[in-house]
Amino acid sequence: MKLVIVGGVAGGASAAARARRIDEHAEIVLLERGPDVSFANCGLPYYLSGEITERAKLLVTPLERLRQRYKLDARPLSEVTSIDIEKHEVEVRDVATGTINRERFDKLILSPGAAPRMPGIPGQDLPGVHSLRSLQDADRIMARLHAGVKHAVIMGGGFIGLEMAECLAHRGVGVTLIERNPHVLMALDPEIARPVADELATRGVNVLTQRKVTGIHSIHGLLRVTMEGGESIDAGLVVIGIGVTPESDLAQKAGLALGKSGGIKVDRHMRTSHPDIYAVGDAVETPNIVTGELAVVALGGPANRQGRIAAAHAMGRAESLLDSSYRGSQGTAIVRVFGRTAGCTGASERMLKRLNIAYKTATVHPAHHAGYYPGAEGMTLKVVFAPNDGRILGAQAVGGAGVDKRLDVLAMAIQGKMTVYDLEEADLCYAPPFGSAKDPVNMAGFVAAGLLRGDHPQITAAELRDHITAGTATTLVDVRTAAEFERGTVPGAINLPVDELRTRLGELTSVAGSGPVVVFCQVGMRGYLATRILLQNGFSARNVSGGYTSWTRAI
Amino acid sequence: MKLVIVGGVAGGASAAARARRIDEHAEIVLLERGPDVSFANCGLPYYLSGEITERAKLLVTPLERLRQRYKLDARPLSEVTSIDIEKHEVEVRDVATGTINRERFDKLILSPGAAPRMPGIPGQDLPGVHSLRSLQDADRIMARLHAGVKHAVIMGGGFIGLEMAECLAHRGVGVTLIERNPHVLMALDPEIARPVADELATRGVNVLTQRKVTGIHSIHGLLRVTMEGGESIDAGLVVIGIGVTPESDLAQKAGLALGKSGGIKVDRHMRTSHPDIYAVGDAVETPNIVTGELAVVALGGPANRQGRIAAAHAMGRAESLLDSSYRGSQGTAIVRVFGRTAGCTGASERMLKRLNIAYKTATVHPAHHAGYYPGAEGMTLKVVFAPNDGRILGAQAVGGAGVDKRLDVLAMAIQGKMTVYDLEEADLCYAPPFGSAKDPVNMAGFVAAGLLRGDHPQITAAELRDHITAGTATTLVDVRTAAEFERGTVPGAINLPVDELRTRLGELTSVAGSGPVVVFCQVGMRGYLATRILLQNGFSARNVSGGYTSWTRAI
Repeated sequence: MKLVIVGGVAGGASAAARARRIDEHAEIVLLERGPDVSFANCGLPYYLSGEITERAKLLVTPLERLRQRYKLDARPLSEVTSIDIEKHEVEVRDVATGTINRERFDKLILSPGAAPRMPGIPGQDLPGVHSLRSLQDADRIMARLHAGVKHAVIMGGGFIGLEMAECLAHRGVGVTLIERNPHVLMALDPEIARPVADELATRGVNVLTQRKVTGIHSIHGLLRVTMEGGESIDAGLVVIGIGVTPESDLAQKAGLALGKSGGIKVDRHMRTSHPDIYAVGDAVETPNIVTGELAVVALGGPANRQGRIAAAHAMGRAESLLDSSYRGSQGTAIVRVFGRTAGCTGASERMLKRLNIAYKTATVHPAHHAGYYPGAEGMTLKVVFAPNDGRILGAQAVGGAGVDKRLDVLAMAIQGKMTVYDLEEADLCYAPPFGSAKDPVNMAGFVAAGLLRGDHPQITAAELRDHITAGTATTLVDVRTAAEFERGTVPGAINLPVDELRTRLGELTSVAGSGPVVVFCQVGMRGYLATRILLQNGFSARNVSGGYTSWTRAI
Repeated sequence: MKLVIVGGVAGGASAAARARRIDEHAEIVLLERGPDVSFANCGLPYYLSGEITERAKLLVTPLERLRQRYKLDARPLSEVTSIDIEKHEVEVRDVATGTINRERFDKLILSPGAAPRMPGIPGQDLPGVHSLRSLQDADRIMARLHAGVKHAVIMGGGFIGLEMAECLAHRGVGVTLIERNPHVLMALDPEIARPVADELATRGVNVLTQRKVTGIHSIHGLLRVTMEGGESIDAGLVVIGIGVTPESDLAQKAGLALGKSGGIKVDRHMRTSHPDIYAVGDAVETPNIVTGELAVVALGGPANRQGRIAAAHAMGRAESLLDSSYRGSQGTAIVRVFGRTAGCTGASERMLKRLNIAYKTATVHPAHHAGYYPGAEGMTLKVVFAPNDGRILGAQAVGGAGVDKRLDVLAMAIQGKMTVYDLEEADLCYAPPFGSAKDPVNMAGFVAAGLLRGDHPQITAAELRDHITAGTATTLVDVRTAAEFERGTVPGAINLPVDELRTRLGELTSVAGSGPVVVFCQVGMRGYLATRILLQNGFSARNVSGGYTSWTRAI
């Protein structure tokens, strides 16, 4: 048995190690185009920030160990230039010498990764304009930083763009972040991304959204980044982080099927259209675990797991009932941006809207642990679920400590096809330093289940905003205290504190039109009670989900 | 509709709020024996430590708000002394005046809680000997502390005992903790509890296990705690935390059925043996969600959720398919002890052994986030699962940051009846500050699934210890480096580093007897590869689960 693996990072390295554990006697050849096999590309921003001080730490498994411990024929600087499917051979170019060799395979696993997407603008190849995928990219940026950079422009406000913004600011470099879309972190819904944008602004990062970069020009030793409409920014460094493109050329040239997304088509064992060839990682398209939509997902966790799955199947583990198969992409992702953490798992509201899949949302703004214990940090947790059976379709969160925990709990719930009713009953860790008797996950479950049971009719802040814009808003009642009302409220709202609501219902009767009374408080709790009081006194009523806190993020 | 609720903390307060939201017009009477309704008893240790500085913060919902906002007839200092089931009345004694009144009910919810279990020894009622359940208990301990306590004895090394040890040490009080059992935290298996005991010792807490306290004596203004065998400790304060007893007397006297555990019997809607009477919280017995065993579980989270469930059913929500019901106790619990965190969810190994339920375990010792990113803290994660289908039965963890997250993820997996194969495929948050491409949860899944697939035969450190003790151990190979071997190894082990194993297999052939070769490394990873190498070279081989790290905790 001879297994050849193309690409030695994440998926490829995982596949090689797993293949060796399964078959001690197989010949395993690991071909990597770059100089580094098995390096931690997710760590690159933190190397650039100076948090990771030793470059060597990014080399997860040194080449010598791969060779000795895993008995791998691991070859860096070996680029596979073509696949001869008929002969079961790959053509390998020695990057250093240019020599071409051919390598036979019984099974082939492709883990070519993805290339940084380039904007296609003049100047994108100028010195000082970099993307960040490899250690060599990091070295080049580091050299530029050491040469002295006062200001940097980051193109792209996705996960890597934001990590780079934090990391460069951490070094004392002024940062302008340019995003083409209406907000940063388009993987998240706007109201979840908003506190991250606020955090960037607070930390002095200049965030420009809805800007299209038209070119980069070398002027007086600086790089001038010009935008549509005439704006421009001068910087000593430009980092391009506008996404990646699957490296599927090799597969395509070999006649392997690609999907519409441009990624290599694979089955649930990561097998391509050819039975002896597998593909994993950033170059393949996989179905979304919630929506079924096929897409390329460039994330480290899935790449590693896919590598394991492909290796097991390639080494003949196909028939075992217990063998693992890839269940689809769930897209769990997280980013720390200074003091904020934001992330998502499963489908976003935007994604479901685009696919015309029915959904409801529940948003809560709880503290990350018991409020009476010092150090409680606020978070926003949003759960997206099916309106018929309450199945959880996605979740997003933003805040400080504890955001990653709630996302992981919800990621597990999504994998388990669990419902918002299960969230109500979740039995999670509670001690004052860690959580609450009613954890944020329970709270989201209560709000979502209340909506589905009809106990707690709700309107989202975005829906309210649209009603107000369209002039179709009905009676709007701020049930917070007079003091809170004075500090700012939703336009058109009257103030009727929840604690006085029962005795002052008469006032509402006089102003209530034919539509429902829409109530809101700060985060949704008092509004829920107010909704219950109104409903049981003959009013049609709805609570603004997430209350005034959600409102301020919707406008 | 008139609902009477007995007990105003946790379950009772939750039931009252939920009942009001469901029925705006019901009469709801909330009777609490003590002076405080809805206080945070889980916060008491942190009030005593000085971390929570304001006593008022422990009053989660002030009495006035319960009355006004929830329109509750909330009465502190009102003790229910008997239930007249026939007349649907309770007898209420005004604790301040001694006056007796009767209160009619349509539905009754009992949330009487639990009383501290007392050791039944001479001196347990002496001044300066306290348990910790109520704010008044905390006040008494606080007064004692303010009077000047240099040393305290804590009886009981359970969750509350350990929280108190931390909190008193935090105040500069010397602490001796006396535990009757072989180790602290008997809810956890011994190897998970061990690092907590080590942490206590490191922080100067004197931990005495397997000690039976025989009495407490007042001597020269101090309390002398005497133990079997003649040992004694003098202290200015003794805190008793040896567990609780369900307050089920009231229910029993009324003829309601109790279980063998002494807790009130309830159905999944928290209904007692009488259709109009419900019971929730620390006084009821519920089935374990994994084992089905009936037991009293005194935890805040379940009490709150049970209160919601009972209220909904009592208010007529019985027929809704979507209505929540109690699924059983999962026993998720966590404790912070100085720099360590330990916790559990589902069934422990000890519990399954006692019930003769078949299980397997997988133990890993990963870092809580990517090792190359600074600040990674070690943890031990143990998953207990069914040997036939891999269903997760329980999980335990100990370490620092990130322990609560992994327990919550596994708590959700247990609720969702998920398997170790699901853990392999879990798609969890990964960015260097939060996790790893292969999260500890994935790692535990890999190890467990490898065991079930037969790829990765294992022996636990405890089993190895027992074999060595019994003289039935076979060839034992330390596959770590020579330097690691020199620093300490398992008695009888020979050293054969994994990287040399393939070339030195001959040496092993000569020493291998008829039994399997048992290999181990530091945490189990290299041992796994060594096991694979041996298995595929004709040896019978097993890896010590969790490696030498687990070994040091098993002896």
